[in-house]
Amino acid sequence: MLRFLGEPHHDGSALYVSDQRPELGARVTLWLRAPLAAGVTAVHVRAVHDGEPRYYEAAADNRGNAGGYGASDVWWRAEITAVNPVTPYRFLLHTTGGQRWLTAAGLAAHDLTDAGDFRLVCHQAPPEWMSDAIVYQIFPDRFDRSHPVSELPDWALPRDWDRDPVIPAGPGTAEQFYGGDLDGIAGRLDHIQSLGADTVYLTPIFPARSNHRYNASTFEHVDPLLGGDEALHRLSGALHARGMRLLGDITTNHTGDTHEWFTAAVSDVNAPEREMFYFDPVTGDYEAWWGFKTLPKLNWGSDLVRAGMTAVLKKWLGPFDGWRVDVANMTGRRGADDYAAEAAALLRAEVGPDYAFIAEHNHDATRDLDRDGWQGTMNYGGFTRPVWAWLRGPDCDLEHFLGVPGGVPRRDGVAALAGFRSFASQMSWRSFTHSWQLLDSHDTPRVRTVTGSRERHLLAAGLQATLPGTPMVFAGSEYGLTGVNGEHSRTPMPWNRPADQDLGTLAGYRDLFGLRRAEPALRHGGLRWLHADADCLVFARETYEETILVSARRAPGEPLAIGAHATGLHNAEDGDVIPGEGPALRVWRLSR
Amino acid sequence: MLRFLGEPHHDGSALYVSDQRPELGARVTLWLRAPLAAGVTAVHVRAVHDGEPRYYEAAADNRGNAGGYGASDVWWRAEITAVNPVTPYRFLLHTTGGQRWLTAAGLAAHDLTDAGDFRLVCHQAPPEWMSDAIVYQIFPDRFDRSHPVSELPDWALPRDWDRDPVIPAGPGTAEQFYGGDLDGIAGRLDHIQSLGADTVYLTPIFPARSNHRYNASTFEHVDPLLGGDEALHRLSGALHARGMRLLGDITTNHTGDTHEWFTAAVSDVNAPEREMFYFDPVTGDYEAWWGFKTLPKLNWGSDLVRAGMTAVLKKWLGPFDGWRVDVANMTGRRGADDYAAEAAALLRAEVGPDYAFIAEHNHDATRDLDRDGWQGTMNYGGFTRPVWAWLRGPDCDLEHFLGVPGGVPRRDGVAALAGFRSFASQMSWRSFTHSWQLLDSHDTPRVRTVTGSRERHLLAAGLQATLPGTPMVFAGSEYGLTGVNGEHSRTPMPWNRPADQDLGTLAGYRDLFGLRRAEPALRHGGLRWLHADADCLVFARETYEETILVSARRAPGEPLAIGAHATGLHNAEDGDVIPGEGPALRVWRLSR
Repeated sequence: MLRFLGEPHHDGSALYVSDQRPELGARVTLWLRAPLAAGVTAVHVRAVHDGEPRYYEAAADNRGNAGGYGASDVWWRAEITAVNPVTPYRFLLHTTGGQRWLTAAGLAAHDLTDAGDFRLVCHQAPPEWMSDAIVYQIFPDRFDRSHPVSELPDWALPRDWDRDPVIPAGPGTAEQFYGGDLDGIAGRLDHIQSLGADTVYLTPIFPARSNHRYNASTFEHVDPLLGGDEALHRLSGALHARGMRLLGDITTNHTGDTHEWFTAAVSDVNAPEREMFYFDPVTGDYEAWWGFKTLPKLNWGSDLVRAGMTAVLKKWLGPFDGWRVDVANMTGRRGADDYAAEAAALLRAEVGPDYAFIAEHNHDATRDLDRDGWQGTMNYGGFTRPVWAWLRGPDCDLEHFLGVPGGVPRRDGVAALAGFRSFASQMSWRSFTHSWQLLDSHDTPRVRTVTGSRERHLLAAGLQATLPGTPMVFAGSEYGLTGVNGEHSRTPMPWNRPADQDLGTLAGYRDLFGLRRAEPALRHGGLRWLHADADCLVFARETYEETILVSARRAPGEPLAIGAHATGLHNAEDGDVIPGEGPALRVWRLSR
Repeated sequence: MLRFLGEPHHDGSALYVSDQRPELGARVTLWLRAPLAAGVTAVHVRAVHDGEPRYYEAAADNRGNAGGYGASDVWWRAEITAVNPVTPYRFLLHTTGGQRWLTAAGLAAHDLTDAGDFRLVCHQAPPEWMSDAIVYQIFPDRFDRSHPVSELPDWALPRDWDRDPVIPAGPGTAEQFYGGDLDGIAGRLDHIQSLGADTVYLTPIFPARSNHRYNASTFEHVDPLLGGDEALHRLSGALHARGMRLLGDITTNHTGDTHEWFTAAVSDVNAPEREMFYFDPVTGDYEAWWGFKTLPKLNWGSDLVRAGMTAVLKKWLGPFDGWRVDVANMTGRRGADDYAAEAAALLRAEVGPDYAFIAEHNHDATRDLDRDGWQGTMNYGGFTRPVWAWLRGPDCDLEHFLGVPGGVPRRDGVAALAGFRSFASQMSWRSFTHSWQLLDSHDTPRVRTVTGSRERHLLAAGLQATLPGTPMVFAGSEYGLTGVNGEHSRTPMPWNRPADQDLGTLAGYRDLFGLRRAEPALRHGGLRWLHADADCLVFARETYEETILVSARRAPGEPLAIGAHATGLHNAEDGDVIPGEGPALRVWRLSR
């Protein structure tokens, strides 16, 4: 059995928490495992009930032996009550070396705030299917088209699918039109499924005067350019027939300036819709997303906004199995107004227990999660950024790092781990595992451009496939497509351009995400970090039944000992050594 | 000029933030100082506006030279807008060694959440007098009495002031009655003022069937045993005549079971007051603080509670200049109910801009601060605990550490600093500096019992006197009184027991808090940590005009170099070395 860090461990997975979907008032058993070498002599759980900490003594437990964990670990068991919708808890370890706190942020020998406490969450749980999901993101104008568009809208700049490169910035960016449609997507489900993905996430499909459609003119019907309502129902039906899911993209922060709500509001200062936006009473000017006047900001203080947006969500939860929420971080926030939590809760109540509800948030969603709103976030802050900084190529000269000036920094594995933990420790295990771990999207450069090589790209994809959290793949990255910014990354798929298809990358994706699909521990297991140095991260994903060991190495280094009885699953031989060659992701199953 | 850590620095003090009381929408100038050796080549401020991060480039600034800071520091300047009631911000440093984030938690070379971001707060600021305050806590039954009580209440167990030791636990604890009163306090104002204290905080003074009076029978008048309403007005008038302040103690979480609200509620299931408490509709049982049935918990979902408590606060803001709020951490919280923020905001609105409003919270108040409620907390978590663990005596055998099982741990100075920073970094500078830095209270063992020696005790008091935050002294600790738990620490003052008066400790308090009163930098200056090892902490308190250097050493060690031009202020000679002798607190003024 591998023993690298040898630290006492707990996380929110079923190996350590008896009830993954507790009701308010439930009694929940918690386990902690501690290597004998950690010298733990007694353990208390500290749980915060109604704002006050309470201490419960833990008892030694035989869970470890029964699970075949062997004699080198001592397991401790305690019960706590889920008193509040979110019950923070941590462990107090009495050790031969003194007292230690164990929180989701790790082991500490000093006092610290509750920010990193573990959290038992009683809010309505996300649907169970989400924790098995692998999401495939499609920008509809660029994925595939079932037929040429017969009549172009007046705003569109027609482009040839395979010959015209994407305009990355400046005039024409939002107007360049390649003509992908929903039936085109429906014809490619074999490809999507071959990657192990089971959930398709579409960027907006409502009519708008742009190719991205984030400036919706209405939420009442699907853009006829995409095939209209019927095409959406055909696509949804085809996915559902395969047991797959479909997610939509809803703009809760703003509409387009051609939206019927806004045109009514702007045309008459006395219109009821006026309250739905932020108009300056004197100048008549209105608040817009980042000042873009095509994107007037919704005022969530308005009952009409609340009623209107809930009706939209309700209307479309038939073809869609849930929503990705655009600009969720800003939704409901403006100056002294902060309706963010109310808006999320209101919409979530409409979405209900069987649907997905994931918030876009590009820097730090932790304080907006673990409420009764968003189920998770697009984890740019706690996954994309640390991975990019660790695996960026030597020639990466991107100017911005997801909006952060100064390019993509070069950081080591220890910094990557610190980044992962900073974010993961400040949300519940549930929010962490239901957040999307993504390497790129329609809003970022392509991961291939960041990493600069197939090897580092597949290493990044390997982290996606093996770490907790829902992998989200942006269509085209499985072919190794490139892009220097979000616009540039909206590449028409290279179905007819074999030279643009990196089949080695494609095979890697199929292998990695197939492995995730095959191994329950990669989807539901706990996460124990075992080793971090500049060039190598090692971790275990564990259920009661199995331990999957993952080594991610960005550069050659010294081999690391595993101990015996490891079965190679991916890129790995059976044996007892983590090889020093790299870049490579290697996966073993460990027998106990 | 001293140069220990040499890290880039910013904090919320006036040296680095132009507006200490910004209005919403204000433009605020921020400064950052970086030693040349840090290799900073460019600086951006990241401010989160309406939930979205924005970057502003900073410019090099001559503030340092003008202030006489010399050529070894580079100062950077940027302006941001206070867009939201709380605007989080941090610095992105581009250095010759790569990118770094600077937050209130320190310098980081990895991605991290916003939890430790600096915060620009536009909520109503606390009154200006609070930032100069030194608070003296009095438990009225034990401070002094103007005359013997003529008629004892039926619950009271009479005790002799100087001969009967305090019952520390078990029967009689709440009933032992020494008979201190408000006129007794009014006769001792010279003593209080001689310590440098200017604000008296009284634990409850409403009638109750106990010596602690946290189980109030009414909020309508002052306990006649204490002298009644008239005595309160006399005490308040005497304090105000000296330019001093008086704070009360209000139980917002519960009343006594003899309180008129509760007796009405319990006597009739149809009484309007029934909704003010948590009655089980089936059993008729009611929720109480920690299960103590004498302390029925208030239900802040009730409009009667809201109206009743706001009326109480309003009624008494004449004699009182503000409130310490008992069990603020639990107030409004119970199971699925969380009215905590609402209750705090409602009460604060009643309290208004000229009064103090400080929340009791014994583990972590950070998430309850920087709203429109509490102005600060009793900082047990971020001050008392780290100080105790660093300065506990070798023989300290207290069983609990403010409720934490396992006694007072022994920790080093690095852990103390980590503890201070964990809490201070997760609240605004304003909330940090308005929180009470206390070494003990009526709820804890005495600091003298924890430290076990006058030297370590005065070192702890020295940290109180020199670090940011409002010092709170529990009456009697200036005489070196002892106590093994909260009850035991409620010692009758030793006015008539010279043998119980440690005059060396008293002189130390007068010197230390006199220094705080004399030196604006100790009350309003920034805080820059310069050195931490197991036995020694060094920091600077700085305004634009002066730098005060403080060395806190718990044990002898190696001398540390200061550089020239230091003027000894406390326990320190002029010169250029921090001596290795200890325990000792030493304070210098540094000329630039």
